Amino acid sequence: MNFPEVIERKRDGRENTREELAGLIAGLIDGSVPPYQISAWLMAVLFRGMVERETATFTRLMMESGEILDLSRLPGVKTDKHSTGGVGDKVSIPLAPAVASAGVVIPMVSGRGLGHTGGTLDKLESIPGLRTDLDVEAFRRVLERTGFAIIGSNASLAPADSRLYALRDVTGTVPSVPLITASILSKKFAAGVDALVLDVKTGSGAFMRGSEEAGELARVLVEVSRQLGKRATAFVTSMERPLGRAVGNALEIAESVEVLRGGGPEDVRELVLALGAEMIRLAEGASEEEGRRRVERALAEGTAYDLFLRWVEAQGGDPVTLEDPERGLPRAPVVRSLECPAAGWLAAMDTREVGLAANALGAGRTRVGEAIDPAVGFRFRVRTGERAETGDPLVEIHARTEKDAEIAERRLLGAMAFSERRPEIPPLVRSGPIQGMS
Amino acid sequence: MNFPEVIERKRDGRENTREELAGLIAGLIDGSVPPYQISAWLMAVLFRGMVERETATFTRLMMESGEILDLSRLPGVKTDKHSTGGVGDKVSIPLAPAVASAGVVIPMVSGRGLGHTGGTLDKLESIPGLRTDLDVEAFRRVLERTGFAIIGSNASLAPADSRLYALRDVTGTVPSVPLITASILSKKFAAGVDALVLDVKTGSGAFMRGSEEAGELARVLVEVSRQLGKRATAFVTSMERPLGRAVGNALEIAESVEVLRGGGPEDVRELVLALGAEMIRLAEGASEEEGRRRVERALAEGTAYDLFLRWVEAQGGDPVTLEDPERGLPRAPVVRSLECPAAGWLAAMDTREVGLAANALGAGRTRVGEAIDPAVGFRFRVRTGERAETGDPLVEIHARTEKDAEIAERRLLGAMAFSERRPEIPPLVRSGPIQGMS
Repeated sequence: MNFPEVIERKRDGRENTREELAGLIAGLIDGSVPPYQISAWLMAVLFRGMVERETATFTRLMMESGEILDLSRLPGVKTDKHSTGGVGDKVSIPLAPAVASAGVVIPMVSGRGLGHTGGTLDKLESIPGLRTDLDVEAFRRVLERTGFAIIGSNASLAPADSRLYALRDVTGTVPSVPLITASILSKKFAAGVDALVLDVKTGSGAFMRGSEEAGELARVLVEVSRQLGKRATAFVTSMERPLGRAVGNALEIAESVEVLRGGGPEDVRELVLALGAEMIRLAEGASEEEGRRRVERALAEGTAYDLFLRWVEAQGGDPVTLEDPERGLPRAPVVRSLECPAAGWLAAMDTREVGLAANALGAGRTRVGEAIDPAVGFRFRVRTGERAETGDPLVEIHARTEKDAEIAERRLLGAMAFSERRPEIPPLVRSGPIQGMS
Repeated sequence: MNFPEVIERKRDGRENTREELAGLIAGLIDGSVPPYQISAWLMAVLFRGMVERETATFTRLMMESGEILDLSRLPGVKTDKHSTGGVGDKVSIPLAPAVASAGVVIPMVSGRGLGHTGGTLDKLESIPGLRTDLDVEAFRRVLERTGFAIIGSNASLAPADSRLYALRDVTGTVPSVPLITASILSKKFAAGVDALVLDVKTGSGAFMRGSEEAGELARVLVEVSRQLGKRATAFVTSMERPLGRAVGNALEIAESVEVLRGGGPEDVRELVLALGAEMIRLAEGASEEEGRRRVERALAEGTAYDLFLRWVEAQGGDPVTLEDPERGLPRAPVVRSLECPAAGWLAAMDTREVGLAANALGAGRTRVGEAIDPAVGFRFRVRTGERAETGDPLVEIHARTEKDAEIAERRLLGAMAFSERRPEIPPLVRSGPIQGMS
């Protein structure tokens, strides 16, 4: 294959053929196409896009670049949920046990924190003992026992994606609809998933800030899934403020436990119900109302929480630590209260900056492979759209040192805008459900 | 420097700072910025362009990436000519001695064949013994003795350009106005040139086929030269058909000798006069008419040819071989005549394809460093715009083997279009002179 011609074709706005895309992926894996050619092609894709058929072909080739899990021995439609990433987004943690306890099998492949966003695996690993690096056999066993299991993407699933992602991350080629689509779907479908609910974030804490781009990504994700013979639904949801009140790994586990016990912040609970109902609809054809009722019941009656505890144990964690999360989970030595400087409405928040401030405390990584601090983060006492009087506590900052806490305090103040008038808060679900194959 | 941010800034259509561009060039040379980041940036530049100030900064930094020849001991305004490359473009070969014999000092840094185009150095090296790999001291000596000298770009002149070009060549990032501008001007100005005449080709045999793009390139080349304190003029000229009748190294030397002896094809002669007059104007302020008269006289009176023979000797070549080029220069063992299949006007020619067919005979390279065959190529008996009767000889094909000649015959027939009506031939000079600093 003459790879410069493949790049030129994309550069000139034409469609790459299946053969060209297959050559690219083979060359990426065996090293015969050098990274400098791949990255030039990635930038050309970012500018020129792909037609849907091309994105579907590319996604399928990425999926087929490694092992494809065969979960056919497990009953029913294997269903998963994916979020494009945000700040405080712990939805998967209460969602998976709630939907699994309603009878849906969920083989969940999750990710780690990326850029300013947190990652489900990092959050779960703040539960003492819990492991997410299961091999395929262990994954299958946990799935059979508890109806859901959560692991990290591993080297055998869609290996082309990990390599491509590492290159995109350092070449300014992350925000591209076809590349994001192929990355998300190839991993999910390689893990044996039949149906997928997608939560595409938009707003100041999302990777795709604009709601038009987010809508386009949602539409392409659903359409490409359909072309690959999978069921999929997408929602575009707001990331104009952190989801829930907690940002930081152990703090978010504690908040997830509140939701699993039938309480918790309204927005987290609402997403669990909306996304959960759609998962049940995709898996079993239940109506939206029926799905919501089943998720609500699982949360209200404690079956979701019980299943979560069993699952924690199945993946090596100590469920006792969750009985009183404030004591059982890692705690930061410094807890400082940021007080309201002048009465008013909290009108807006630069959510990306909140995520970066949490990372700077140690909640996330600035380089691949870095260790993170499970205990640090923020608990918001006042959220965007709420009012505070002078001196009211706005945020509880959980930090390793006083100095760290001070720096975070300044960053948070800089990220918040107050107003004398009550602000409009955009609806949580901005659009959707965007449904494909019925 | 955070290089991903430099890429993102360009990707998002913003201007890169001097500091960023300097970091890129330093990182390219010392290896601290990996090629996969450079190539992603190159593709972003291809799509987003640069503002003129940015192109000028980038060009200056490229120029300063290596040695800058000091030719100030030589008298007058050091003047050069550059063509963006075409098929049959041997203009530099008669031009340099003609203008030098009119009194202008010409330190010429030339290139090799690239893609479908030929290169002045490859053509000159078909003269037995002639060398173009002079060191700086030898270059200076030849310049002092004959008033012009022709060498290849060497590793010490604008080394960043050679590295960047090697990357552009294999990543689909050649056709970009700011990148072409920086590449051309950095090498020329590093070689000590004060004034430059640019021949920007357009049409089916040019790298920039569209005349709008070519016009834009011409304008930017002149403007950036001005910002670097140099004199420059550009012409946009037609490459809708090969220049002259000869394509191939020794064949083009023979045709150049015809021009130097006061004859030769009208289009080659016209470009020598137009570009030569402008070089004299830039160097000495002479009027266009005065310049043309001096070049015409040098060709008519034989002073240009005499100087060329002295120069050939100064750079190690054997001038005796030029007395009868048909015998003195390398000759191909097979000469085959392609005959006109059906009477008509030769209406159009895919000039790029003609260049590629000549390369396939061995006249050019398909990989860097390959040896070329000086003897092979084409001599057109009928050119675009001329009429032929059935059976008339159209092209003399000079080849190494009968098989090669047959393949070339088929390619040439495929590249030609005949018509029953006399075609319109676009003017040779499409626009210009585009002049900068007066």
